[in-house]
Amino acid sequence: MQYKAIKLVKRPKLTITPDLFEVVTLETPELVDGQFLLKQTHMSLDPAMKGWMTDDRNSYIPPVELGEVMRSSGIAEVVESKNSNFAVGDRVMGLIGWTEYAVSDGQGLQKLPPQIPAEAVLCVLALPGLTAYKGLMDVGKPKAGETLVVSGAAGSVGSMVGQIGKAEGLTVVGTAGTDEKCRWLEDELGFDKAINYKSDDLAKQIAAATPDGVDLYFENTGGPVQHITFGRMNAHGRIIVCGMIADYNTDKPSPGPNWLNIIRKRLTVQGFTMPDHWDEVPAISQKLLAYFQAGKLKYRAHKLGGLESAIEGINLLFTGGNKGKLMVVL
Amino acid sequence: MQYKAIKLVKRPKLTITPDLFEVVTLETPELVDGQFLLKQTHMSLDPAMKGWMTDDRNSYIPPVELGEVMRSSGIAEVVESKNSNFAVGDRVMGLIGWTEYAVSDGQGLQKLPPQIPAEAVLCVLALPGLTAYKGLMDVGKPKAGETLVVSGAAGSVGSMVGQIGKAEGLTVVGTAGTDEKCRWLEDELGFDKAINYKSDDLAKQIAAATPDGVDLYFENTGGPVQHITFGRMNAHGRIIVCGMIADYNTDKPSPGPNWLNIIRKRLTVQGFTMPDHWDEVPAISQKLLAYFQAGKLKYRAHKLGGLESAIEGINLLFTGGNKGKLMVVL
Repeated sequence: MQYKAIKLVKRPKLTITPDLFEVVTLETPELVDGQFLLKQTHMSLDPAMKGWMTDDRNSYIPPVELGEVMRSSGIAEVVESKNSNFAVGDRVMGLIGWTEYAVSDGQGLQKLPPQIPAEAVLCVLALPGLTAYKGLMDVGKPKAGETLVVSGAAGSVGSMVGQIGKAEGLTVVGTAGTDEKCRWLEDELGFDKAINYKSDDLAKQIAAATPDGVDLYFENTGGPVQHITFGRMNAHGRIIVCGMIADYNTDKPSPGPNWLNIIRKRLTVQGFTMPDHWDEVPAISQKLLAYFQAGKLKYRAHKLGGLESAIEGINLLFTGGNKGKLMVVL
Repeated sequence: MQYKAIKLVKRPKLTITPDLFEVVTLETPELVDGQFLLKQTHMSLDPAMKGWMTDDRNSYIPPVELGEVMRSSGIAEVVESKNSNFAVGDRVMGLIGWTEYAVSDGQGLQKLPPQIPAEAVLCVLALPGLTAYKGLMDVGKPKAGETLVVSGAAGSVGSMVGQIGKAEGLTVVGTAGTDEKCRWLEDELGFDKAINYKSDDLAKQIAAATPDGVDLYFENTGGPVQHITFGRMNAHGRIIVCGMIADYNTDKPSPGPNWLNIIRKRLTVQGFTMPDHWDEVPAISQKLLAYFQAGKLKYRAHKLGGLESAIEGINLLFTGGNKGKLMVVL
């Protein structure tokens, strides 16, 4: 059977352009014992993928090699199987890539419970939810009553961070790039305050929303929110550095804040990425499932249609054009 | 009996100037029960004292109030006593201040073993040694074989950090402001490499001295060493932020590095100050004493003479003019 896949054939300079990719038509192979055939239904688009396209051998996971199918996580259904652990009809999640079909031996795949919709899986239980939980809870070590600021709060990670923060008794202030996103954060997700970072009086608004200072800052963006929030950190504050999306599309990353405040306030600024913690995925998934089933994690999915929509669509993440977790439905 | 003391009467703007201080002549009071009279013999001058002069209510300890005797740590001898725990002839260490004599009830004072010279106490067992140990060992959590870069390596803290690093099996690279200091670090203290940070090819020299990258950076200075070393950090590297002396005498602190590398390398950048950890002083002192008695902690003292020499002398710390731990001998 013929199917389409998209290979990475060039590395990005500053932005992701269509010429980086080649759409190819492939033939599904004959399965050998232990293998099964996956039909992907939902393909996740995440900011980290830009890093995976870049030839940075020092990064936390190796880059996608040129000529390889582009890496991405997604949800797929088993449609043919010569593996007794994976039956036709089973749903799995894993790094399936930009492809309609894939052959697997099960390595690196996680079986999904049948009762959770695929969109909820990608929004809550997949990389964004795992990253949000690990960063906020294990790196940040929040205490009920503390004040959390999260940048990129309407993003796939940020929206989960804020909601987990609320579930854990924090005062949660988020920043986002449109008034519509801010209303969604306050009205639907229960943020105490959401601030449009493009406001002229951003510093004043952040100060007004954090009268007792800031104990935890969950960093997804860099930019002005970083500098303002850094200056409002309380003694022994923790800064969790998860993303710097403002600097992913530039060759002149903006300077960070001077470190004097790190001493004055005895801050801890800590970077982390989920791939260092794959062994914790089952345990964290259980925690996320519990929040979700208690109605504490809401989401919205921004759905694109068809494999090739990924090529242009991924840039929505860097322009802030997406409303909710970006995904391609196949 | 009459004695001299120096009060803080004005707060510094950018630099410490003589008009900030007033030299006063006081009379030793009659002791009441529980009190004793101290004659200070050695007065420590430390970079942190500039912060104590500044009215920053958000800092880690309250500022010195205007009209109060300037705060400093020092060593004194008990010369009169109405306290059964402190006998005439006992030596103590504590925050005695810029004064020749002081009355105490013992609070906050630490008794000193008689066999250790006063200079060694101030250089090894006092704040610089405690700070060096706490920062490197507890915050940095070094593993034998790792590479440590320490800035301000010829300073009172930096020289202890590097030597503790060597005692713990690290490769130790230090930066300092003169070739003479660099020779001292390599020839006397056993640093693997010391680099003059004023060199034209600083980045190249740091790279050559750290072929396997940098696992631990102990920050005492800020400035160019910070940016270069930050860019050479290995995955899971730890940065201990103890001092930013390059920025203490300016109202335009220079920007820090962009935080992208904090994610890429999953770095931890952590600020600390010893006053958060006073309860650990006895335990850390024991460790320092053990290193010292094993001959692993060498020092040199830069001695000024007479109480009033502190007023101009403290600036040597900010010009880099001191050679070794700065102190006033009374």
